[in-house]
Amino acid sequence: MKPSSSSASEQPDATPAFSRLGIIVKPDGGDPLAEVYRNLVAVAEEHGVEWALEEEAENPAPSIQAQRFSRDRVDRDLIVVIGGDGTMLNAARCLCLHDVPILGVNLGRLGFLADVSPNEVQRHLSAILEGRYTEERRFLLQGSLMRNDTRIMESVALNDITFKMRDPARMVEFEMSIDGTLVNQQRSDGVVVCTPTGSTAYALSAGGPLIAPDLHAVGIVSICPHTLSYRPIVVDARHLIEIRPVEGSRGGGVVSFDGQLNQPLEYGDVLAISKYEHDIRLIHPAGHDHYSLLRDKLCWSEQTF
Amino acid sequence: MKPSSSSASEQPDATPAFSRLGIIVKPDGGDPLAEVYRNLVAVAEEHGVEWALEEEAENPAPSIQAQRFSRDRVDRDLIVVIGGDGTMLNAARCLCLHDVPILGVNLGRLGFLADVSPNEVQRHLSAILEGRYTEERRFLLQGSLMRNDTRIMESVALNDITFKMRDPARMVEFEMSIDGTLVNQQRSDGVVVCTPTGSTAYALSAGGPLIAPDLHAVGIVSICPHTLSYRPIVVDARHLIEIRPVEGSRGGGVVSFDGQLNQPLEYGDVLAISKYEHDIRLIHPAGHDHYSLLRDKLCWSEQTF
Amino acid sequence: MKPSSSSASEQPDATPAFSRLGIIVKPDGGDPLAEVYRNLVAVAEEHGVEWALEEEAENPAPSIQAQRFSRDRVDRDLIVVIGGDGTMLNAARCLCLHDVPILGVNLGRLGFLADVSPNEVQRHLSAILEGRYTEERRFLLQGSLMRNDTRIMESVALNDITFKMRDPARMVEFEMSIDGTLVNQQRSDGVVVCTPTGSTAYALSAGGPLIAPDLHAVGIVSICPHTLSYRPIVVDARHLIEIRPVEGSRGGGVVSFDGQLNQPLEYGDVLAISKYEHDIRLIHPAGHDHYSLLRDKLCWSEQTF
Amino acid sequence: MKPSSSSASEQPDATPAFSRLGIIVKPDGGDPLAEVYRNLVAVAEEHGVEWALEEEAENPAPSIQAQRFSRDRVDRDLIVVIGGDGTMLNAARCLCLHDVPILGVNLGRLGFLADVSPNEVQRHLSAILEGRYTEERRFLLQGSLMRNDTRIMESVALNDITFKMRDPARMVEFEMSIDGTLVNQQRSDGVVVCTPTGSTAYALSAGGPLIAPDLHAVGIVSICPHTLSYRPIVVDARHLIEIRPVEGSRGGGVVSFDGQLNQPLEYGDVLAISKYEHDIRLIHPAGHDHYSLLRDKLCWSEQTF
Repeated sequence: MKPSSSSASEQPDATPAFSRLGIIVKPDGGDPLAEVYRNLVAVAEEHGVEWALEEEAENPAPSIQAQRFSRDRVDRDLIVVIGGDGTMLNAARCLCLHDVPILGVNLGRLGFLADVSPNEVQRHLSAILEGRYTEERRFLLQGSLMRNDTRIMESVALNDITFKMRDPARMVEFEMSIDGTLVNQQRSDGVVVCTPTGSTAYALSAGGPLIAPDLHAVGIVSICPHTLSYRPIVVDARHLIEIRPVEGSRGGGVVSFDGQLNQPLEYGDVLAISKYEHDIRLIHPAGHDHYSLLRDKLCWSEQTF
Repeated sequence: MKPSSSSASEQPDATPAFSRLGIIVKPDGGDPLAEVYRNLVAVAEEHGVEWALEEEAENPAPSIQAQRFSRDRVDRDLIVVIGGDGTMLNAARCLCLHDVPILGVNLGRLGFLADVSPNEVQRHLSAILEGRYTEERRFLLQGSLMRNDTRIMESVALNDITFKMRDPARMVEFEMSIDGTLVNQQRSDGVVVCTPTGSTAYALSAGGPLIAPDLHAVGIVSICPHTLSYRPIVVDARHLIEIRPVEGSRGGGVVSFDGQLNQPLEYGDVLAISKYEHDIRLIHPAGHDHYSLLRDKLCWSEQTF
Repeated sequence: MKPSSSSASEQPDATPAFSRLGIIVKPDGGDPLAEVYRNLVAVAEEHGVEWALEEEAENPAPSIQAQRFSRDRVDRDLIVVIGGDGTMLNAARCLCLHDVPILGVNLGRLGFLADVSPNEVQRHLSAILEGRYTEERRFLLQGSLMRNDTRIMESVALNDITFKMRDPARMVEFEMSIDGTLVNQQRSDGVVVCTPTGSTAYALSAGGPLIAPDLHAVGIVSICPHTLSYRPIVVDARHLIEIRPVEGSRGGGVVSFDGQLNQPLEYGDVLAISKYEHDIRLIHPAGHDHYSLLRDKLCWSEQTF
Repeated sequence: MKPSSSSASEQPDATPAFSRLGIIVKPDGGDPLAEVYRNLVAVAEEHGVEWALEEEAENPAPSIQAQRFSRDRVDRDLIVVIGGDGTMLNAARCLCLHDVPILGVNLGRLGFLADVSPNEVQRHLSAILEGRYTEERRFLLQGSLMRNDTRIMESVALNDITFKMRDPARMVEFEMSIDGTLVNQQRSDGVVVCTPTGSTAYALSAGGPLIAPDLHAVGIVSICPHTLSYRPIVVDARHLIEIRPVEGSRGGGVVSFDGQLNQPLEYGDVLAISKYEHDIRLIHPAGHDHYSLLRDKLCWSEQTF
């Protein structure tokens, strides 16, 4: 299957496809990071591409003088994120506001988002700067926590928004509705609401289906539900999903955005989840194949017994 | 959630919303069928609606003289199917060509498609004839069996198209691709490719997710796969799904359409599945609620332990 | 299937099968508790059976003068627990030391352990005092937390011992071994180690199998594991199961006994789980049928779709 | 975990631990078979061990003159099976009568039963003949098909006995009981009743748990059941499991033993499954580790995402 929105065009030698590279790096990436970083900078300079490092990052190769840019006022036309899927998630929640393409480079462990491996950085970045690449859009979810008709917190997630029990030995009990229609009242360890991107992450561990990246849909997966006949639900991403803890000791829990930002949700509060208005733009090397990535990451070939 | 495409309008007393009723009945429906049929005819006549029984059906109430109509040249503007989900599936595969709305009446066991119960027939049909109803469109799948570039068989399915092992003690081994891209090569009892409508049927037994009726998506669910990391996949319904048995003793199997039509598929053949060009139009009583139906049918309320 | 160890004998009128009844009640059980309690006391007095209320309990029917007994020095030959499965679990962890039979009475919601319903209390307790009953033994698990070769905590569980992540948005990473042989190193939300009794509780929500009450086996069920090919494991209860958090941020977590007692487990600690030396003795009305209880509690009859 | 019954003893140089080797081979094993066979014969002759090939087998290395032995009157004290798990299953069903130890050698694809790989044959067989090995017993299931109180067929299985639908598009409906107590009446694709050995085979694909090889238990796993709250059940192997097709079109199906022998089962018939009186004796190289084999075969290490 081809990515949902792709554009790849050949560029003349002289003008690179992107001209202002921004680099975001995983904190404490150590030597592997330094090496990828140096290789990446070398390719940029070879192609005459201006580059800058995110301003808050420690310089992974102090011998190379680096310009800086801010995540909040991105003046770049391509961002390369070096790290793992976690670094990508963190960057994506911020970068989606800027409509800037993102390329993910991992530090040794193939990621679903950081799908360029360290030893391929030079080859793939060269090709991308020469215009040989694929772009796809991935949507994010927006979650608002409402208390007494006031929005007390709001954030976005590229993978998933979860509502889970506060203590490991408790469960949560809540009502879930879609566009105002009750789906069910459930007792469980919680629920994951995921994008297609997040369908290969925590939702998958919780028993959810793989959702193709180009499908405009959201997965709703209960975690260890006490009702054995619950099944994951896949709905159009245009719907509003609402979660309301019930009264009593099981009511309260914790909302998490991509497993990185946490916020308590109590009885009386509402968690409202909908599609975010901005997408992220993922850049892949030309020939990117989502199903090949799935086969690699999920051991589909080797694991047959 | 509201059905994807609904139209409900109030009608003046004098003109019923539908004027030429067609009735399709389950063969051998016995006394329960006869009673529902008589009640239905009574409502039709009360509203001055012309009605006819499908021409091949045995008359469930021989004392009532019935006009007849043919499934192949449907001159009706509303079809009522009396039976179960099986009768609905059978009728739908034929009626989708005629763009005629369908109402499903069950004979005692609530169905996902035949969602009007016998004791509600009079009340609901009256309301529908008076214009109080909801309509939703459900898409079908089309499956073509190709051998040496020749189409050797083709049919449609409202629930699912399956490819399964021929003998209960064997498995099948096949390659699956989406729009020409390999997804995987698998050994399993088979695979179910389902519509949202079929996601509450066999695919659900096989471990697939619930797909909302208004989502333009297809579920692909492996049955007892030998690779433990396979998971159900949900993709946009615009894609072409192809299944190719591998060479050797495990290659051959059987293709089924809604579990009702069967056809062998051998090594060298291709089963190509895509969205069918015609939808069916389902009529529900006003206030129809898909999630309420799910809660009833799947015992979501009672079954909490 | 018959319970593993049952003894039922007819008693002459004059001598009840049990002569010193102890009553344990759920705190804050309200009016339903008071009614069950009064009915139970009436049956005891009718049969000339001495009875006492647990010393720490508030008297559910203050108008009836109650002798008291202590959980720690049980001088009773039958304990009736009025409450739910939670009250039973709590009582069982203490009573197993005293080798005293336990009868569970629920307050309206059928339990797997508290399987006598309020409206059946009089009939069933009479029958039991007259010798018509079934007894079965259920084993418990013992969990020890070791730090630097010192046992820092130890407790028992009738349902399960779990090790789970501390925060809802994190996971744990740990090694699991059986009798000193490595099973796997896993990243997950945690793991449930359950008795047959606990196989119908949290372990079931997490995807574990039903383990027959008379099987001398323990279930090991990973919760949302990141390795998709993990499956629940059932092993003989004579084995020693050890869990060791790995070093690093994912190492620490929380151990829970029947979801009621919690204790942190850090890198360097070991959680050692084995069969406890004492069983509990469950009394059921004659004719008790475990599979009938499963069909009721899990909606096996109604839920067919 | 150590195998349930193991015996390993050092032997003096002069006397091999086994003195009359029997060889069973996979039909049509080709060159890989021929090479393993020659290596195996070489080791036997080196150790002065008399050897013979099964009488019905084609000689994989015609240049080597081979004595023959019959499966029906086994006069061997060690059988080496060269092939895959299928060849092992086939041999085991016959050899269990003779109480003779069996060693499984695969032809390139690691098996759960045929766990010696071709390149290890010489090293491992030498060690085994010198007394360095582990032996474990695995039990089999016996299935009897009763019609009008007459046994119409009976066979044994090392992995599993299944009852499945006859046609791929149908399901079966049957009652299942354990020691005469009803478990449930189910509609499904069928059911797998497996030994611990079979818990890593078809039952695992169908969603069953891993059952430790030394546990005296049987797994009962429904295949695609229409009741979503069914879960696999693990019971003591001493029980009698009975399956009775219901009346009507869904009643009939097919019973299979290890997926190799098939027999129709109709309404009115009973399939009675119990533990077989004879075990097989599996020989493993010293240091055999069941969980290491699981990690390899199920990709537990690589497949973490």
